[in-house]
Amino acid sequence: MQLGMIGLGKMGGNMAARLRDKGHEVVGFDFNPDVRDVDSVAELVERLAAPRIVWLMVPAGEPTHSSIRELAGLLEEGDLVIEGGNSHYLDDRRHAEELARRGIEYLDAGVSGGVWGRENGYGIMVGGSAENVERARPIFDALAPDSGGGFVHAGAVGAGHFVKMVHNGIEYGMMQAFAEGYELMAASGIVEDVPGTLASWRQGTVVRSWLLDLLVRALEEDPGLERLRGYAEDSGEGRWTVQAAVDHAVPAPVITAALYARFASRQEDSPAMKVIAALRNQFGGHAVARREE
Amino acid sequence: MQLGMIGLGKMGGNMAARLRDKGHEVVGFDFNPDVRDVDSVAELVERLAAPRIVWLMVPAGEPTHSSIRELAGLLEEGDLVIEGGNSHYLDDRRHAEELARRGIEYLDAGVSGGVWGRENGYGIMVGGSAENVERARPIFDALAPDSGGGFVHAGAVGAGHFVKMVHNGIEYGMMQAFAEGYELMAASGIVEDVPGTLASWRQGTVVRSWLLDLLVRALEEDPGLERLRGYAEDSGEGRWTVQAAVDHAVPAPVITAALYARFASRQEDSPAMKVIAALRNQFGGHAVARREE
Amino acid sequence: MQLGMIGLGKMGGNMAARLRDKGHEVVGFDFNPDVRDVDSVAELVERLAAPRIVWLMVPAGEPTHSSIRELAGLLEEGDLVIEGGNSHYLDDRRHAEELARRGIEYLDAGVSGGVWGRENGYGIMVGGSAENVERARPIFDALAPDSGGGFVHAGAVGAGHFVKMVHNGIEYGMMQAFAEGYELMAASGIVEDVPGTLASWRQGTVVRSWLLDLLVRALEEDPGLERLRGYAEDSGEGRWTVQAAVDHAVPAPVITAALYARFASRQEDSPAMKVIAALRNQFGGHAVARREE
Amino acid sequence: MQLGMIGLGKMGGNMAARLRDKGHEVVGFDFNPDVRDVDSVAELVERLAAPRIVWLMVPAGEPTHSSIRELAGLLEEGDLVIEGGNSHYLDDRRHAEELARRGIEYLDAGVSGGVWGRENGYGIMVGGSAENVERARPIFDALAPDSGGGFVHAGAVGAGHFVKMVHNGIEYGMMQAFAEGYELMAASGIVEDVPGTLASWRQGTVVRSWLLDLLVRALEEDPGLERLRGYAEDSGEGRWTVQAAVDHAVPAPVITAALYARFASRQEDSPAMKVIAALRNQFGGHAVARREE
Repeated sequence: MQLGMIGLGKMGGNMAARLRDKGHEVVGFDFNPDVRDVDSVAELVERLAAPRIVWLMVPAGEPTHSSIRELAGLLEEGDLVIEGGNSHYLDDRRHAEELARRGIEYLDAGVSGGVWGRENGYGIMVGGSAENVERARPIFDALAPDSGGGFVHAGAVGAGHFVKMVHNGIEYGMMQAFAEGYELMAASGIVEDVPGTLASWRQGTVVRSWLLDLLVRALEEDPGLERLRGYAEDSGEGRWTVQAAVDHAVPAPVITAALYARFASRQEDSPAMKVIAALRNQFGGHAVARREE
Repeated sequence: MQLGMIGLGKMGGNMAARLRDKGHEVVGFDFNPDVRDVDSVAELVERLAAPRIVWLMVPAGEPTHSSIRELAGLLEEGDLVIEGGNSHYLDDRRHAEELARRGIEYLDAGVSGGVWGRENGYGIMVGGSAENVERARPIFDALAPDSGGGFVHAGAVGAGHFVKMVHNGIEYGMMQAFAEGYELMAASGIVEDVPGTLASWRQGTVVRSWLLDLLVRALEEDPGLERLRGYAEDSGEGRWTVQAAVDHAVPAPVITAALYARFASRQEDSPAMKVIAALRNQFGGHAVARREE
Repeated sequence: MQLGMIGLGKMGGNMAARLRDKGHEVVGFDFNPDVRDVDSVAELVERLAAPRIVWLMVPAGEPTHSSIRELAGLLEEGDLVIEGGNSHYLDDRRHAEELARRGIEYLDAGVSGGVWGRENGYGIMVGGSAENVERARPIFDALAPDSGGGFVHAGAVGAGHFVKMVHNGIEYGMMQAFAEGYELMAASGIVEDVPGTLASWRQGTVVRSWLLDLLVRALEEDPGLERLRGYAEDSGEGRWTVQAAVDHAVPAPVITAALYARFASRQEDSPAMKVIAALRNQFGGHAVARREE
Repeated sequence: MQLGMIGLGKMGGNMAARLRDKGHEVVGFDFNPDVRDVDSVAELVERLAAPRIVWLMVPAGEPTHSSIRELAGLLEEGDLVIEGGNSHYLDDRRHAEELARRGIEYLDAGVSGGVWGRENGYGIMVGGSAENVERARPIFDALAPDSGGGFVHAGAVGAGHFVKMVHNGIEYGMMQAFAEGYELMAASGIVEDVPGTLASWRQGTVVRSWLLDLLVRALEEDPGLERLRGYAEDSGEGRWTVQAAVDHAVPAPVITAALYARFASRQEDSPAMKVIAALRNQFGGHAVARREE
C-alpha cells in the first residue's frame, strides 16, 4: 500500500521503516532534509496516487494543527489523513471537521511502543469511521506486532487518542507504583538485593510486566540509579487524563498522584512547603514574640 | 528432598502437589482430615528424618504464632522452619528468636502466584541466612517457575516477607491504575469497545502485564463486570506497606490511594462524607435560620 | 449609590438587601416576578442613570453568558458590569472582551460567605482595572464585613474569580481534613464524646476555624449525623482548581483528594472497584479453572 | 492547687507560668538547672503533699517511658500522674498499667496551643477516669482559655492523646490545603497580590481560621517567604494518625497526602523519581540500543 508520512523523527522514522519492511511504499517528509524523500508537503501530495493516505506524525499542538491546515489546502476529496501523533481527543474533532469541509477523511491513531516498536510492533488505537479504518487496515496490520493483537478500533473520531491518553495515564500509575516500592525497599535497610528482588519478580508474580522488565534492565545498567536525577517530565497525556477524569467525575487518585509526583520532582523548592514551614514557625513561635490580635 | 508442610489449603495444597510433581517427598498436615497425611504436628515431626525441614503455610497472625510455638516444642536442634505464609516481617524476627533459643533454624518465604502457581510456578522471596537458603534450595527451585528466575534471597530474616509485602503494595497500585483507566473509559461515552481496547493493549504497549491479561480474561467472562460489586477486601500487606512507608518516611501516594479506595469501597455510607454534607448544609443555609455567635 | 442587580436568588437577594440596608439604591431583576423591581433587563437599564453599574448574580455558564450578551446590547459606553457569580476566570476574559467592543467596562467579583453574608458581610475578591474598582468601591465596602477587611483587588480581569476558585479549593481540603478526622474518631471506639471533642477545639487549638464552628453546630443539631447521607455535590470550583493546578504543574494532592472523595460519594457502585474485585477473583482463582495462555 | 511539673521547656515552662498566674503552686523539675525548683524528681516528690499530682511534660518515647518508671518507684498509692506530652495513645495504656500496679493513678492530656498558649490558654484533651479528671479539674481549668471551652474529657486512658493526634492530623490537612492554594495563586501569574488576597479572606469567607491568621502574619513578615526553604519536619502525630486510619480502615487521603508532602520536602533527591526517569529513559530509548528478550 502507498502512503505519505509527515514527520520522520524517532517515532515516525521507525514506523516508516517498519512499514517498508512489510512491503508498503512510504513517501516521507520531514523538516530535516537528511531523512526525507520529498522536499515539501506539496511534493509529498503530488507523489501519492489519489485517493491518498497521509500519516501525520509531528508534535501535538501547533505543529499538528498547521499540518492539518496545510493538508486541507493540498489534499482532494476522498483522501484520508491519519493523525498518529499525541493530539488531544477534542482537537481530533476539530481536525476532522476542518478536513470534512473539503471532503477529506480523518482517522486518529494513538501509537504506543516507543523505540521498541520498529522491531516488536506498535500498539495502535484508532478512532473514526469503520470505512476509513478498513481502508487503512493494511497499514495498521503492518505496524501492529506480528503475533497478532495490538490493534483496536476504539470508537468515533477522537476515541483513538482518548484511549491512548488513558493508556498513558495507567502507565503513569504503574510506573509510580514500582517507583514507590523501589524506594521503600531501598530505604528500609532490610533488603540486601533490591535489583535482584525486582529481577526475581519477572517470573511467577502478580506484578510481572513490561515496565518491570524495563526497570530490571535499567538497574542492570546502573544498579543504584546513580547516574540519574529524580526528575521526571510529563508529556501531556497524564495531565489530560486527570482533566478528563475531573470532567467525567471519575475519581482517579492513583493516576493523579503519579502526575503530581512528577510535578514535585521538577521543583527546585516548593512554595507550598514554604507555607508549611512558615506556619510551623508561627505556631511553634520561633523568633515570634507575640500575636497582635 | 523430604519436608513437612503444615497448612494444605489453596496455597499449601497446590505447593505440596507441585513439590511432589518435582520428586520431593511431602508429609502434610492440615486441620482438614481429608487432605492430610498425618493426624498431628507431632506425628508429622516423627515422620521426618532429622535434620528436618518444615514449611509452614497457615494464616498469618495467631495461627502462625501458635504453630511456631508448637514446633518449638517438637523440633530438634538443627531442624529448619520455613514460614511461607503472609507474616509481618517484624513477626519473623520474633519467630526466629523463639526458635533460635532451641537451636532451630528459620527462614521466611514470601510466595506469589496465586492459583496459577501450581502450573506456572511461584515467585519465591526468602529472608534468612545463606546457609539455610542453600539447604532448602531444592525446594525453592521446585516451587519457582521452570523457566528459571522467580527466586530471590532478599536479605536476613524478615526480608522475604518484607519484599513480598512491597510486591503486594505495588500490585495494589497497578490494579488501581487499571481500575481508574477502565472507569474513565467506561464513563467517557467515547470508547465504544472498552474490553477490546484493553485486549489490544496486551501487545506492543507499555502497560502490558499479567494483571492486564487477567483483566482481559475477566472481561471476556463478564464484559461489563455486571456480576460483581465494586467491593474490594484488602489482605493486610497493603496496610503494612503503607505503615512501613510511613515508618521510613517514604512518600507512597499511589500505594496508599489504592488501599484507601478499597477501604471506601466497603463502606455502606461514609461518615466523612456526612461531615462534608453537613458542612455544605451549614454554610449553604438550608433549613438553618441563624448563626448563634 | 445606584446599581442594578440581575439575579435575586439566595445570594443576590441577600446582597441586594445588605446594600439597601447600607443606603444604596438597588434596582433588581429576576425571572421570579415576586422578588423583582422591574420586569426586564431592558427596564432595569432604563431605570438606572448613566453611567450605570449592573451587578450580575446568576448561575455560571450559559445563564451568565446570555446575560452578558443581553447587557452588551442594552448598556452604553462607560457603563460597568460586575460579574459576581461563579464564572470561570477564563470566561471573564471573554465577557470583558465582548463588552469592551461596545465600550462597556467589566469587573469580576468572587463572593464568599453563603447565607451568613447578609448579616456578617461577604468576602469580596475583585479582578479588573484599578479605575473600575475605585468606581464600585462603595458597593464593595457595603458588602464586606463591617469590621473592615474582607475585600481584595486581586489583579486584572479574571483574578477575582481565580482567587475565589482557589478559596473554594482550599475550603474543599479543609472540609475533608475535618471529615477524615471525624470519621477516624468515630471509627476508633476510643473517643466517647466526638461532638464534645470537636466543640472543645474551638478554643485554644490550631484547628479553630469557621468550618469547625459550623461542624460543631451541625453536630449539636444531629449528634451522629444520622439525618444525612454521605453524599456530597461539588460546585465546579473544586474541579476548576484541580484543572488549574494541572495546567500550572502545581502539585495539589489535598485539594484533589477532597474532590475525588466527593466524586466517589456519589457513586452507587464503583466501576473501578469492580475491576479490583475482578482482578482479585482472577488471581485468587475463585471459579476460574485455568489460564489459557 | 499544688502540683509537680517535670519538663520545663517551651511548653512545660509556659504552662507552669500560666498555672502560677492562676494561683496554683507548681514545683518544677527539668534537666536544665537554670529553670528548675528542685534538683531531682525524688526531691520534687518529697516537696509535694500526698496525694500528689505530677504533670509530665517531656519528649515522647524513651524520655517519657523512663520518667514513668522513675515515678512508679517514687510515688505512693493514690498519687496521680498526668502525661501531658505527645505520647502515642497505646503507650498511655502501658504507662497506666505500670503505675496501676503501685496504685498510682494516670491521666493522659493532649495539649494544643503552642507558644500562644501561655497567654491565650491551651486546648486540653484528657483521657482517663471521671474521678481523676474531676480531681485535676482546677489545673485543666487554669490551662484552658479564659473564655471557657478548650477542654474535653474524651474517653478512657489514651483518648486524650488519641484526639490530640487526630487534631494534629487535621491540622496537617488544613495547612497543606492553604499551602496548595498559595502555590497555585503564586504560580498562576494571575494574582497580583497574594498576601493581600489571603489577608482579605480573614473576614467573611469560609476559610477563615487561626491558621489563615498565622499565614497572613508570616507573609507580613516575609511577603514572598524568601527567607524559608520548602522543607517541613513532621512531629510524629501525623504519622500516627495515618497509621491509626490504616488500622481502622478509614480512608484518610487528605491527611496522608499532607504527610507525604512533608516527607518529599525533605528529600535531596527522590529515589522513586529516579525510577520514573529510568523507565522513561528505557522506553524512550535514549542511549539504549535493543531489548534483549
